[in-house]
Amino acid sequence: MSMYHPIAVRMQNQLENEKREFVGGTTFRLGSVTIDVESTDGIGGLIQEWLEQWAIVKGHDCRDASPIVGTQGFPDFFIGDEDALLEIKSFNAKRSPSFDIANFESYHESITADPSRLNADYLIFGYEMEDGEIRITNVWLKKIWEITCPSERYPLKTQIKRDVIYNIRPGMWYSADVKYSMFSNKEEFVTALNQTKDQYDSIRE
Amino acid sequence: MSMYHPIAVRMQNQLENEKREFVGGTTFRLGSVTIDVESTDGIGGLIQEWLEQWAIVKGHDCRDASPIVGTQGFPDFFIGDEDALLEIKSFNAKRSPSFDIANFESYHESITADPSRLNADYLIFGYEMEDGEIRITNVWLKKIWEITCPSERYPLKTQIKRDVIYNIRPGMWYSADVKYSMFSNKEEFVTALNQTKDQYDSIRE
Repeated sequence: MSMYHPIAVRMQNQLENEKREFVGGTTFRLGSVTIDVESTDGIGGLIQEWLEQWAIVKGHDCRDASPIVGTQGFPDFFIGDEDALLEIKSFNAKRSPSFDIANFESYHESITADPSRLNADYLIFGYEMEDGEIRITNVWLKKIWEITCPSERYPLKTQIKRDVIYNIRPGMWYSADVKYSMFSNKEEFVTALNQTKDQYDSIRE
Repeated sequence: MSMYHPIAVRMQNQLENEKREFVGGTTFRLGSVTIDVESTDGIGGLIQEWLEQWAIVKGHDCRDASPIVGTQGFPDFFIGDEDALLEIKSFNAKRSPSFDIANFESYHESITADPSRLNADYLIFGYEMEDGEIRITNVWLKKIWEITCPSERYPLKTQIKRDVIYNIRPGMWYSADVKYSMFSNKEEFVTALNQTKDQYDSIRE
């Protein structure tokens, strides 16, 4: 049996199979002047809104979680009768993935309170943007430990600014040529998360 | 003679007169599924891209400055033969304006190096968004000292997080019912900017 939720598996298969059709873009109109938007700012939110509509059209039981958890909350979607957790991430496939997986402190706290969050599925879109045209190049389905890895600084790769840890950040899970491999299982990830928290707290005391 | 650049004055007059026509929205398409975007995230950037196109259609000499100063640089546009400075801001008119006028430290530094930046014109759009439909409700043309004011904490109102000053933030220049009035002239603003910098530096030593 797959470790991913069967609805997430069906969605990922269908999206990956049909990805050549997923070409489009953003237009913005005010009065008689309409523009094709060239910027990729906010594209993650657009893909998420789009996915909700796509899932309805295709008949997948994938429901927006924001009325319950808020627009910034976790998860993005509930899937199936058991309200399984689905997160949506996206990144410009011409660069390394740099999306925020989760706020480091909040994630650590929430996992301690409710370890079932570790089982959330991540549906990840790689896109390319050229002359205002967006194109989906890849759709992955992953668990958090399959897209995270150690770093020079801490056992878990994070976004750090002025010595403050902000977010858990992904490694390049699709590349064979990386210095640090992704974790092999949930336990390795949790160990790295906890060790990072301990090391971080000790230098801040 | 107006203290604003004549091209900015003509643009503001025309925009304000035609504002009832400025109704529209954002659509995002991937393949056969198109959505009307409900979120206001990134709307400021869209209005700015739209204005550039609108100015071309209307024959205003208003040129995107980003090829020279970068997309995050100052100003947003150059106007007229003398490359006068035009900044574009926008905010949800159902709330208080909360846009970033400029990064506090960078602005202080740049004004010291080049005081002519104080003379930049600010073209400010108030909008309302409902069910994915955006509507321009107001277009103002202002100088920086006409949209800034003191605050409880510092002589200049700023965005502060964990005692760190991030950005210069506007007051409600269009309201008669405010605790702190906007500055009356450029000198008052500069004095408040410098006093804020001095007070801020002294508490951080």
